[in-house]
Amino acid sequence: MPNPRAAMLVIGDEILSGRTRDANMHHLANTLTGIGIDLKEVRVVSDDADAITSAVRALSDSYDYVFTSGGIGPTHDDITADCVAAALDAHIDIRDDARTILQAHYDRSGQELNTARLRMARIPDGATLIDNPISSAPGFKLGNVHVMAGIPKIFCAMVESVVATLQGGKPLLSRTLPVMRGEGDIAGPLGTFAEKYTDLSVGSYPFQKDGMYGSNLVVRGQDASQLDTAMAELSAMFAE
Amino acid sequence: MPNPRAAMLVIGDEILSGRTRDANMHHLANTLTGIGIDLKEVRVVSDDADAITSAVRALSDSYDYVFTSGGIGPTHDDITADCVAAALDAHIDIRDDARTILQAHYDRSGQELNTARLRMARIPDGATLIDNPISSAPGFKLGNVHVMAGIPKIFCAMVESVVATLQGGKPLLSRTLPVMRGEGDIAGPLGTFAEKYTDLSVGSYPFQKDGMYGSNLVVRGQDASQLDTAMAELSAMFAE
Repeated sequence: MPNPRAAMLVIGDEILSGRTRDANMHHLANTLTGIGIDLKEVRVVSDDADAITSAVRALSDSYDYVFTSGGIGPTHDDITADCVAAALDAHIDIRDDARTILQAHYDRSGQELNTARLRMARIPDGATLIDNPISSAPGFKLGNVHVMAGIPKIFCAMVESVVATLQGGKPLLSRTLPVMRGEGDIAGPLGTFAEKYTDLSVGSYPFQKDGMYGSNLVVRGQDASQLDTAMAELSAMFAE
Repeated sequence: MPNPRAAMLVIGDEILSGRTRDANMHHLANTLTGIGIDLKEVRVVSDDADAITSAVRALSDSYDYVFTSGGIGPTHDDITADCVAAALDAHIDIRDDARTILQAHYDRSGQELNTARLRMARIPDGATLIDNPISSAPGFKLGNVHVMAGIPKIFCAMVESVVATLQGGKPLLSRTLPVMRGEGDIAGPLGTFAEKYTDLSVGSYPFQKDGMYGSNLVVRGQDASQLDTAMAELSAMFAE
């Protein structure tokens, strides 16, 4: 059975303007790879309701799992929850379970749960809350869409909270053979090798070291013994 | 007149599997912001012909400029050029101008321009070559799509090569006011402020410093004097 397919939606003007360098994509990619879920597409959109809503709808329709990052704080530009609700035709309002979590958090810290902070209790009907052990304000899962915070520390904690609820497949195993030859020298036999092992994904990533060209040949697949066989053949092909 | 709108397409299994952390998006975002082109969307897709072709088509139809990164080397998984040609209904084959550039490069380095390396001379009819001062193999521009290498050093050099050909608008100016208060405390007045200055984009980015919560309030716009006025008002609002 093929692995489940996932997509990610990163939301935020600050990424697209270059102000902030996204870190969440790389973290999610590694986490999903490790549990046998194939991340097949990532989109980054601005804090624009139409852009977010149409991306959520497109990705939710096309993939088994969708993960969003960003736009769930208390300020006016935090519109992700409302957009996800609109995309999936769900009603959204302040929900008591989320309000209770926030109230307890702000009681502990002696701050007021004001109107702005109550925005973070806006959760669509039918959604399951995602635990936020860092700053309490929860994410949520609606349909196949997991809505999480953009701040990397909170995003990672929320991913940790949802991992156990995901149905992964076989983890993708990866083997790397560094070869001190340029890609152009090895591309011919490497292509023939890739055609032979259609169950495996074969990639080549060039590098430079001490002024010499080299290539990291990366073979990925789900079957460890098939990978071992393939790697032995690859090593023999490119033995100096 | 509004600024031109751009999209980026990052191509590569290695980004989606978490093997490699993309660096090109952040570089392109900063470059475009600096010349008044608004990057509105980024997509990351795998080395899959259908995924690449349909993303190129969708982005080329929706934006003024499209920039791609990755998949133009000599190996079997380098299929970007053929996919861009297919997406824009152009014929593609080895082109003499690109072959001449590669021949000169490999003559200099004493390597053979073999079948694999000739793959890098596959350029669609009607495309303009993009100079690659690092490793010679050119990128190209077809319609509004700029096809560039994935290796960050070469990607940056190619971006440098194309910047002069782009028609930018007014650069987006950005001012930041750090406030040592949590987002929830300032979200109310900040929202009112954002509604007043509809020409400006107003964002809030939380941070923690010495155990205290703070927010970077970022205001972006094209008119320096309007920005100055707005920032003065913002500073007065949040003066301690």
